[in-house]
Amino acid sequence: MALIVHKYGGTSMGSTERIRSVAQRVAKWVRAGHQIVVVPSAMSGETNRLLGLAKELMPNASTPEAMRELDAVAATGEQVSVGLLALALQAQGLQAVSYGGWQVPIKTDSAFTKARITHIDDTRVRADLAAGRVVVITGFQGIDEQGNVTTLGRGGSDTSAVAVAAAMKADECLIYTDVDGVYTTDPRIVPEARRLSTISFEEMLELASQGSKVLQIRSVEFAGKYRVPTRVLSSFTPWDIPLEEEAASGTLITFEEDEKMEQAVVAGIAFNRDEAKISIIGVPDKPGIAFQLLGPVAEANIDVDVIIQNVSHDGRTDFSFTVHRNDYARAMDLLQSRVLPAVGAAKVLGDAKICKVSIVGIGMKSHVGVAATMFRTLSEEGINIQMITTSEIKTSVVIDEKYMELAVRALHKAFGLEQGATA
Amino acid sequence: MALIVHKYGGTSMGSTERIRSVAQRVAKWVRAGHQIVVVPSAMSGETNRLLGLAKELMPNASTPEAMRELDAVAATGEQVSVGLLALALQAQGLQAVSYGGWQVPIKTDSAFTKARITHIDDTRVRADLAAGRVVVITGFQGIDEQGNVTTLGRGGSDTSAVAVAAAMKADECLIYTDVDGVYTTDPRIVPEARRLSTISFEEMLELASQGSKVLQIRSVEFAGKYRVPTRVLSSFTPWDIPLEEEAASGTLITFEEDEKMEQAVVAGIAFNRDEAKISIIGVPDKPGIAFQLLGPVAEANIDVDVIIQNVSHDGRTDFSFTVHRNDYARAMDLLQSRVLPAVGAAKVLGDAKICKVSIVGIGMKSHVGVAATMFRTLSEEGINIQMITTSEIKTSVVIDEKYMELAVRALHKAFGLEQGATA
Repeated sequence: MALIVHKYGGTSMGSTERIRSVAQRVAKWVRAGHQIVVVPSAMSGETNRLLGLAKELMPNASTPEAMRELDAVAATGEQVSVGLLALALQAQGLQAVSYGGWQVPIKTDSAFTKARITHIDDTRVRADLAAGRVVVITGFQGIDEQGNVTTLGRGGSDTSAVAVAAAMKADECLIYTDVDGVYTTDPRIVPEARRLSTISFEEMLELASQGSKVLQIRSVEFAGKYRVPTRVLSSFTPWDIPLEEEAASGTLITFEEDEKMEQAVVAGIAFNRDEAKISIIGVPDKPGIAFQLLGPVAEANIDVDVIIQNVSHDGRTDFSFTVHRNDYARAMDLLQSRVLPAVGAAKVLGDAKICKVSIVGIGMKSHVGVAATMFRTLSEEGINIQMITTSEIKTSVVIDEKYMELAVRALHKAFGLEQGATA
Repeated sequence: MALIVHKYGGTSMGSTERIRSVAQRVAKWVRAGHQIVVVPSAMSGETNRLLGLAKELMPNASTPEAMRELDAVAATGEQVSVGLLALALQAQGLQAVSYGGWQVPIKTDSAFTKARITHIDDTRVRADLAAGRVVVITGFQGIDEQGNVTTLGRGGSDTSAVAVAAAMKADECLIYTDVDGVYTTDPRIVPEARRLSTISFEEMLELASQGSKVLQIRSVEFAGKYRVPTRVLSSFTPWDIPLEEEAASGTLITFEEDEKMEQAVVAGIAFNRDEAKISIIGVPDKPGIAFQLLGPVAEANIDVDVIIQNVSHDGRTDFSFTVHRNDYARAMDLLQSRVLPAVGAAKVLGDAKICKVSIVGIGMKSHVGVAATMFRTLSEEGINIQMITTSEIKTSVVIDEKYMELAVRALHKAFGLEQGATA
């Protein structure tokens, strides 16, 4: 007997028919002798519908008081889900009980709309499991010290599930989703992309933050911090496939570096074209210049991703960074009107037609020449590299966006990631 | 400065436009210097939508476990309403905060789907009011000793509002609804029906239970028990009518008998055609016979309304009662197949084509001849009376349903209830 947390996304909860199918799947696990906690999302579209109503009444809810109410409204989507799923489980002949985040309780800080879980009291849930019940807990939400409902931000149900699994020291956290696992890269770009049976949580972190949006990144951090064995698997398999088959499907996020040593140096390739590149040319190279350049950008609430400062010559340097494309015009405007005059730089150049391609792999820590292979591959395809950044387990390049698919396919092949290749 | 509780029904909360209008109305009261607590219902149709989803998953939710989940699901309708209304109030420039029943908390017993309020802790609400906030509290729901969400049954938001007003010793509870007050009878039947500016809570009880379905009957009981000045008024007046005019509109439920002494003997006329009549003829008149007849009916969960046992002769009596028409066939079947043979009565007669007409008035306590006027009036119209029951402030007759409108109109005139008559 194992204690297992199941998480189902909004699509899996999208209709009463699908909820019934979730209940049948959970029943299969219970009948195999496992203790199950289920964390469902709101029915698909529901959170948007609720926030849409709120927006009609207050287009810009930016005060803490208003955000508190947004959270109170948005949290009801999952409260409906848990009640309906508990009923569906009971209709399957199981004992089941639902709890809102406040009932568990799942304690969070008071950062409305993006709260963080601080503590989960598992007393009540454990008593229910011991009494033979399936426990259904709302994702996405909790309660703060003052007794206010909070939400964890979009995708927060993943984090709820992993946090519950961590608090209960569950044997595994199964994230049922609309993809059947984590791939070496996006199969829509590279048809030969291969599903990874395991991935280290560090690789998963890089892939998640780089656009392989399978899991909310905070849930991966949580899984890593508390070493929660977490598996991403498909919610579209028939509910009645053999349990052993289901339990071994998808991609398992692991924490044991030793296991990974034998595996591929590069686990996968991430990419995105959400960013734009900005270069400030001829910046006087003196202490504090980076802050002078990026301070106003941060103040304007614009997130900066890749940052590169070249070696200077003649007392001047070039400074480049990327921002989200949505912030590109605002950032350019800000730099030209305020920052450039203040720091005495020569000019600002911008380019929104770029993309970022990253190779990710924990094996890069101990293998030399991985970045070199990346650069050679891109060179052979005639792709010019505009920016490079590296971390221990990732190398990212910024290139012209028109080469994105070509670069991803070439790199996928160069690192032997395709199906049928020796892993 | 007064402390006033406003209650708004589902129609008033039916769209963001209507919610904005509610917020504007509340703002008018706040700007006049009053402390306001608002208790809104779910947006119209929402509770039915939620319970419809639940029904698809479990057609007959009859166990306590299932009813617990029904309540958890249904309660979210009001949770959405309070959050949206708080946002709308903030958009009007007011300070506002929303609470679910569990946050106040509004404590109830554990009778899921029909819980009763046992205690309301007003500490948190009072602190908010003192800090200048409008407090928006979910109607229809509370929390039991075990921390489960409960609901109070259909129309329960009326009861929530009156209970909150009672707990806070509010100066008045204003029930904004889609009628503009309580009438001497249904204006659709008697166009001359007059709105009552005041009505005693006992009369209101009888009118509410007799089919003048303006308020949930339990809310009237609550108002009476705690002497909460409660006013039924229209939510369809423009929000910006003068406050003094609004405050004096509708119908005020009163508790001072002295005031009523000067008023009309009969306050209003109630009627319904939801019932069917059943007579058991030739019942042996011996102790325990009423229980032998009605015990099996109660066991079958069939509510009995009017019950009449005639004086016996020759050791036999006739026994009549009314049931809801929905239960008529079941009751007849039960009596014929099981009860009749057991008690040795002669036969069972039934009639579903009846109606009940009642005159209600606290003045009947101290005036003689009121019932006689009723009987004479019906006699003059050639209407045969089939059954009669009386209480201190009500006289009801059962007549052929085809005479219902005629009877109501004739009685309305006979007791001088029409507009322009001396009240």
